[in-house]
Amino acid sequence: MPHVDLNSDLGESFGAWTMGDDEAMLPLVSSANLACGFHAGDPLGMLTACRTALAHGVTIGAHPSYRDRVGFGRRDMEIAPEELGAELLYQVGGLVGVAESIGARVAYVKPHGALYTRMAVDPAVADVVAEAAATLALPVLGPPLSAVETACSRAGVRFVREAFADRAYLADGTLAPRGLPGAVITDPSEVADRAERIVTDGEVTALDGSTVNVRVDSLCVHGDTVGAVQLAHAVRHALTRAGVRIAAFA
Amino acid sequence: MPHVDLNSDLGESFGAWTMGDDEAMLPLVSSANLACGFHAGDPLGMLTACRTALAHGVTIGAHPSYRDRVGFGRRDMEIAPEELGAELLYQVGGLVGVAESIGARVAYVKPHGALYTRMAVDPAVADVVAEAAATLALPVLGPPLSAVETACSRAGVRFVREAFADRAYLADGTLAPRGLPGAVITDPSEVADRAERIVTDGEVTALDGSTVNVRVDSLCVHGDTVGAVQLAHAVRHALTRAGVRIAAFA
Amino acid sequence: MPHVDLNSDLGESFGAWTMGDDEAMLPLVSSANLACGFHAGDPLGMLTACRTALAHGVTIGAHPSYRDRVGFGRRDMEIAPEELGAELLYQVGGLVGVAESIGARVAYVKPHGALYTRMAVDPAVADVVAEAAATLALPVLGPPLSAVETACSRAGVRFVREAFADRAYLADGTLAPRGLPGAVITDPSEVADRAERIVTDGEVTALDGSTVNVRVDSLCVHGDTVGAVQLAHAVRHALTRAGVRIAAFA
Amino acid sequence: MPHVDLNSDLGESFGAWTMGDDEAMLPLVSSANLACGFHAGDPLGMLTACRTALAHGVTIGAHPSYRDRVGFGRRDMEIAPEELGAELLYQVGGLVGVAESIGARVAYVKPHGALYTRMAVDPAVADVVAEAAATLALPVLGPPLSAVETACSRAGVRFVREAFADRAYLADGTLAPRGLPGAVITDPSEVADRAERIVTDGEVTALDGSTVNVRVDSLCVHGDTVGAVQLAHAVRHALTRAGVRIAAFA
Repeated sequence: MPHVDLNSDLGESFGAWTMGDDEAMLPLVSSANLACGFHAGDPLGMLTACRTALAHGVTIGAHPSYRDRVGFGRRDMEIAPEELGAELLYQVGGLVGVAESIGARVAYVKPHGALYTRMAVDPAVADVVAEAAATLALPVLGPPLSAVETACSRAGVRFVREAFADRAYLADGTLAPRGLPGAVITDPSEVADRAERIVTDGEVTALDGSTVNVRVDSLCVHGDTVGAVQLAHAVRHALTRAGVRIAAFA
Repeated sequence: MPHVDLNSDLGESFGAWTMGDDEAMLPLVSSANLACGFHAGDPLGMLTACRTALAHGVTIGAHPSYRDRVGFGRRDMEIAPEELGAELLYQVGGLVGVAESIGARVAYVKPHGALYTRMAVDPAVADVVAEAAATLALPVLGPPLSAVETACSRAGVRFVREAFADRAYLADGTLAPRGLPGAVITDPSEVADRAERIVTDGEVTALDGSTVNVRVDSLCVHGDTVGAVQLAHAVRHALTRAGVRIAAFA
Repeated sequence: MPHVDLNSDLGESFGAWTMGDDEAMLPLVSSANLACGFHAGDPLGMLTACRTALAHGVTIGAHPSYRDRVGFGRRDMEIAPEELGAELLYQVGGLVGVAESIGARVAYVKPHGALYTRMAVDPAVADVVAEAAATLALPVLGPPLSAVETACSRAGVRFVREAFADRAYLADGTLAPRGLPGAVITDPSEVADRAERIVTDGEVTALDGSTVNVRVDSLCVHGDTVGAVQLAHAVRHALTRAGVRIAAFA
Repeated sequence: MPHVDLNSDLGESFGAWTMGDDEAMLPLVSSANLACGFHAGDPLGMLTACRTALAHGVTIGAHPSYRDRVGFGRRDMEIAPEELGAELLYQVGGLVGVAESIGARVAYVKPHGALYTRMAVDPAVADVVAEAAATLALPVLGPPLSAVETACSRAGVRFVREAFADRAYLADGTLAPRGLPGAVITDPSEVADRAERIVTDGEVTALDGSTVNVRVDSLCVHGDTVGAVQLAHAVRHALTRAGVRIAAFA
């Protein structure tokens, strides 16, 4: 029976501000990437998110970021490798401390936003992520065919590939930049079809019409957009109907 | 042979700003209370402080605080118990994550500043501290005869008492508030004499001239004041000369 | 023709997080209390809020706070008077700088959250607010019969009284604490009735059933709660129907 | 009589952390670039710096930065032009609000750190700075022959050129990057000689030995380095001896 992980970026509220609908998303996914305080997530919110994840049997991953709350971690910035490494360890350690208080464990690391984008292409940043994960003895969840996949391989860190069912791909197998027309797919049935094809056939139609190989262990469903819950429902339903088992990778 | 721990608040720089002289203090103490990012301490600075502590065989403790960087954690603030608990776990967890990367361990918790003052007298805050320490399976370093000592006893958490050789005491065994004349003692030889008497006789002369019992396992030497290094030298010298062994409690 | 100002706390988003619905509220009020960055509001968001307010002919007020983003400025904290004063000037000045860029002016000050609560009862904090307003040559919007009203009178600062149509009052004319049953009124028609009675008769029924005098120049309609827009509509409609003109006080 | 302005980056402490020695530097300079809270400077510290500047008859300039306290504004980061513009207005406005309370005025803008470096070469960022200065009706202090000089000219904003007596220049008249050997000059008499030659002859010897034209209205003396005060003394003494009058440009 084919299987796949469904992951989502959650725990991204901050204090009085909410982002997404964790309560609705957590029953739908198998892995929750929880914000660690630098782009979103305050400790009490992390605790609440850990508790809800635990209640739904959802695996918890750390979702660390550049230190950029007002930019939600979406802006690239220069940071010395040793400093970035320490900031990753601090963020993941912080989530681990919070999770331990309710007997939950943090099972993987998936960097957020601009850091995610950067580690896919910048070998120095990729190495920092891989080394932090090695220190923490945690796998990294990220994009296939990327600098960070290479870095993890070199560092002896398990790397778990993910795809985005609601994002268009280029012919080389990388994500189409958000700015491109058609880069973000919002129709639930189209997203569900793409998800099913990625999981069962390992391929997707790129923006230019070509067929691209996308073999992954996890699908990311976004949690912070309008219609996120509906999309996640559609993906889950399509996969289940196709006989795919949804299960965490860690 | 009598023995005592010497602890100091270190790692309190932030980014480009320095506070105290960690390099000079770490050879003099047996335990370093390292700031955890909320009042002071950025992750790279924590890493450097952990490295220096490890090199000198100094035991590392977490020194979490209220979230108050501009006030250096010295201002009391209202915070819901569950939120404070989560913030403590996050801060200590963050330091643990950083320390692990160089094979160092965090061995105890000593809250900072206004939180330290509050946990000494407020049973609800004391309970939060004790429960966080229980979750983390770490002892708490704090003031004797305090709400937090009681809370730790109730929570089954080891509590380690500390005294301040450079602070005056009131007749009831509590610290004289900083505002009182004579509350802070700056003469190194007087501080050294008080340190020796506290460790060898378990007593100190209070502000009103009475003799107070102060039985402790650790002496705090401040690291952020002018003359801190000289004071620490004087205390260490006096204790060693009196045949006291200086050793970490954890 | 009787008249009253309708004010609302707006501009309280931060970066990617939204709070309330400024676009829907600004056509309904005559004065907008805009967050100044310490509890909410980033400079770009302030600019957007100023622009929308200007487009609707809504008067802009500054809504400064304690420095407490994660607590949304709702938590009391200790802060030295001179520091609080400087923080108020910085926040209001910051909003003034942003507003000037589109030719908008900041016309009054209404402190936020825990600072609002504190200035109502603490003469030292009230004096700080009054002195900052005097420096800025701006009126203060706040609760009647309060320490801050007295302080403004002493400092020669115009003080503008406001009432809350959706909050219960105690027999002494002060707001019922949020914790009390019945303290927050959510039924739009009841809120509208109270608003009309406050404006036309200058009185309201207190929690204990007694009638309290509440003579004010402004009514606050909250912008950050579920149903806020509906409530504001109901209040505006009831007042207009009763022949009350809605107009800014500054 | 030749004249020049001496400017220095001051007010860069934050809360309990100090940076530089404002009290020693302010009697030596004619213009003080005061941090505005985003890389350094809290409102109370700004107030203190304004007060000291006013007491010494030193002209106050705003020294805004990227939002990056832990990196002291020294790290480049991506920020949308409209957001950067709003952040500049907020910071300068904040300083203006604080300064007004003691009757001081903010007379110019000099961006800080990585933003300073960026505006020298990036026309889009230069335009943002020029437009913010136009809104505020303030001159900009910055590097000659730069994108920001061009942008100010286009925006009708007065641009004031500055040179660095303690920094080496390249043959094209731009600053040698800090990483290059010899990029920072620490010998006070050499710095003083360079300062004198820049002011009286309008030229300096570049790293490659060539002579470069550097015609400026202001010399920057750094305030945050070891020996800063001694350097400033040496520069001031050399200029005064050479018959140069030291006077603010605004």
